[in-house]
Amino acid sequence: MALLCRSNFKILFRCFWKLKPPKRFFCAAEFPEKKNPPGSGRVFSGIQPTGVPHIGNYLGALENWVALQNQYPSVLYSIVDLHSITQPQDPNQLRNNILDMAASLLACGINPEKAILFQQSQVPEHAELSWILCCLTSMPRLRQLPQWKMKSKQKNEGCVGLFTYPVLQAADILLYKSTNVPVGEDQVQHLDLAQDLARIFNNKYGDLFPQPHALLSSIKRVKSLHDPSAKMSKSDPHVMATISIADTPDDIALKIRRAVTDFTSEVTFNPKTRPGVSNLVTIHAAMASISVEEALLQAEGLDTGAYKTLVSEAVIQKLTPIREELHRLRSDRAHLEALLAQGNRRARELAAPVLAEVRHRVGFC
Amino acid sequence: MALLCRSNFKILFRCFWKLKPPKRFFCAAEFPEKKNPPGSGRVFSGIQPTGVPHIGNYLGALENWVALQNQYPSVLYSIVDLHSITQPQDPNQLRNNILDMAASLLACGINPEKAILFQQSQVPEHAELSWILCCLTSMPRLRQLPQWKMKSKQKNEGCVGLFTYPVLQAADILLYKSTNVPVGEDQVQHLDLAQDLARIFNNKYGDLFPQPHALLSSIKRVKSLHDPSAKMSKSDPHVMATISIADTPDDIALKIRRAVTDFTSEVTFNPKTRPGVSNLVTIHAAMASISVEEALLQAEGLDTGAYKTLVSEAVIQKLTPIREELHRLRSDRAHLEALLAQGNRRARELAAPVLAEVRHRVGFC
Repeated sequence: MALLCRSNFKILFRCFWKLKPPKRFFCAAEFPEKKNPPGSGRVFSGIQPTGVPHIGNYLGALENWVALQNQYPSVLYSIVDLHSITQPQDPNQLRNNILDMAASLLACGINPEKAILFQQSQVPEHAELSWILCCLTSMPRLRQLPQWKMKSKQKNEGCVGLFTYPVLQAADILLYKSTNVPVGEDQVQHLDLAQDLARIFNNKYGDLFPQPHALLSSIKRVKSLHDPSAKMSKSDPHVMATISIADTPDDIALKIRRAVTDFTSEVTFNPKTRPGVSNLVTIHAAMASISVEEALLQAEGLDTGAYKTLVSEAVIQKLTPIREELHRLRSDRAHLEALLAQGNRRARELAAPVLAEVRHRVGFC
Repeated sequence: MALLCRSNFKILFRCFWKLKPPKRFFCAAEFPEKKNPPGSGRVFSGIQPTGVPHIGNYLGALENWVALQNQYPSVLYSIVDLHSITQPQDPNQLRNNILDMAASLLACGINPEKAILFQQSQVPEHAELSWILCCLTSMPRLRQLPQWKMKSKQKNEGCVGLFTYPVLQAADILLYKSTNVPVGEDQVQHLDLAQDLARIFNNKYGDLFPQPHALLSSIKRVKSLHDPSAKMSKSDPHVMATISIADTPDDIALKIRRAVTDFTSEVTFNPKTRPGVSNLVTIHAAMASISVEEALLQAEGLDTGAYKTLVSEAVIQKLTPIREELHRLRSDRAHLEALLAQGNRRARELAAPVLAEVRHRVGFC
C-alpha cells in the first residue's frame, strides 16, 4: 500500500494556474447559445495517474464525472500518463499508479459502458496532434500562461514538456472533437488555449474542430482536516489531513475525530469565520447527498465532538462500497489491463479518423 | 513547374545554427574509438520537403548520402515533413513537395534497396518519442541553442514547434538507434543535443540508445552564381543564382554563362581573392569527379568565357541522367507513393520495437 500513501493525485487542468484569477471567465449561463446541452456533444477530461484519490478529489471532480456519463451521449476519461512525466516519475510506481487510477475511477462509479476510460500514452494520436498544434502556437501565447509564469520564477524551470504541456492538453481535447470539458473556475485558461487552437486550425485549414466549452459544475471545495485554511491535497505531508477513498472505517473515524475545528462547540456554517467545522458540514452534506441546511438541521443539539461521529458515519457509509470495489478491482490486474486495453481501442477508433483528416489538411497526405 | 521554382530546400540540421561556431567540434579523427566505421552501425539523416534540390544541395549533402548507402549496412533517409510545418506551408504545395523530394532523392541515386527512404509524419513514433524526450530536456538547454538565440532576437519568435524542433531531431535520430549522422561542421550542436538526450535517457532508464556520432564529410561548398560571396540557396530571389537538378541544358548553359566572375581572364583557384571563378572551378571539379588541380589543368590556356563552356558541359553531363530520371519518376505519382509507403512500413518496423521499449522503461506499460 506504500505507493498509495506516497503518490499524488492531480486532476488534469488542476495542477497549476492558481496564482491569479483567469483573464476570462465563462460559464454556460453566459454563453447559452454555445453550450452543448446534456443529450448532445462529447465530454472529455483527463486525470494524472498519481495515486488513489482522496475525498477532495472525489467530491471536487470525480462525482461530477460519474454524473456526466449519464448526461452526455459520448464521454471520454483519460489517464494522462504523458502529462505525468513532466515531473520525475519512478517507472514501477507509474505503472502501478496507472492501474490504481483505473481501479479508483471504476470504483467511484465510472462505467466503461457509458464512458471510454483509456490510457493516453496508448493512443499515439495525442502526441502527433500535439506536435501539429505546437506549430500553430506562438511562444508568447504559451509563455503568458500562469503555469509558466509561476514556473519561470522558480530557480529550476522544469523540463520543456512542462512548458508545452498546455498544447498537449489542447490536443487531448480536440483529438476527439470534444464539445464539453469539465473544469474548475481556476482552470479556464487551459481551455482558452484549446479554444484558440481550434479557431486557428479551423481558420487555416477549414472547419474541423468544434469549440470546446467549459462545464463548470458546483464543485465542493473540501479543505484539509489538519489545516482548514488549505485545500485538501495529496501532497500534504500530514497523514491526518486527507481521507483517501481507500481508507478503512477506523482510519476515517480517527481522522475526522482529530480534524481541527475551534473552541465553539455549536455546529454552524461559516467557512470564513469557522473554516474547520464548516468543512465538516460540507463533507457531511456532500457525502450524505443532502444540502448544507439539512446537515445543519441534523447537527442541531450536537456539540462538535458528537457531530464528528455523524460526519464519520456519512463518510464511511459513502466510501465503504467504493473502498470494497476498489479492493476487488485492484486484486485482478489482468481484468484492469483488459478493461484499459478495450478503452484504448475505443479511443483510437475515435482519434484515428480525426488525426487522419488533420494530416490530410496539413498536407502530409 | 511553378512549385519547383518557388519552393525551398533545406537539409535537416542545416537551416539554423549559423551565427557562431559550435561550442564543441568533433569529428571522427578526434574520437576514433567511438566512431562506427563503415561496415557497421546505422546512418540516419533527414531532409525537409521544400522543393527540388539545386547543385549546392546535391554536392553539399546528397552525393554523400548516395555514397553512405554503399558504405553502411543500415541507412535511413527521412523526408521530414513534421519539421517543415515549423514554417507556414501551403498544404497542396507540401503534398507535392513531399513527392518531389522523394523523386529527387531517387533520381540523385538513393536506392530504396540500400536505404530506407520514408516520410516522417507517417511514422507516429517520431512525435511520441519527441514528447518523452521533451520531458528530459531542460528549458535552458534548448534556449541556449543558436537557432533559438537567433529567433528570439527577431521580432516574431516563431511557433513553439520552432523552439522544440531540436528535440524532434533528436527523436528522429534516437528512434532508430542511429550511430552515425551526416552533418556539416556548422550542424554539430544539433547532434550534441541528441547525444545529451541519449545519455540522459540511458542514465535514467538503463542503456538503450547508442551515442550517435557525426559523419563529417568533405562537403563541397557551392556559392551563388550571382553573388559568389554567398552560399547557393534556394531562397535566393535571383533566378540566375542557382542551378536546380531539374534545369535543362539550355538553362544550365545560360546560368553559367551569366555567372559573376571578375575582370581577370585567366582561370585560377583562390576562393578568397577570386570567389567567382573559384566557384566555377569547384563546380567543374565536383561535377566531373576530378580534383581542383585537374580542373585547373583542363582550364590552361582558356579564358574565363571559354572555361564557362567547359564547366557547363561537365554540369550538363552530370545532371542530364538525373534530370531525366527525375522527370520519369515525377510522371508516375502512384509509383512514388508506393515506394514511400514501403519505406514508411520498413521504418516503422524498426521504430516500433524501440518505442515499445522506451514506453516500458518510462513506466507506461
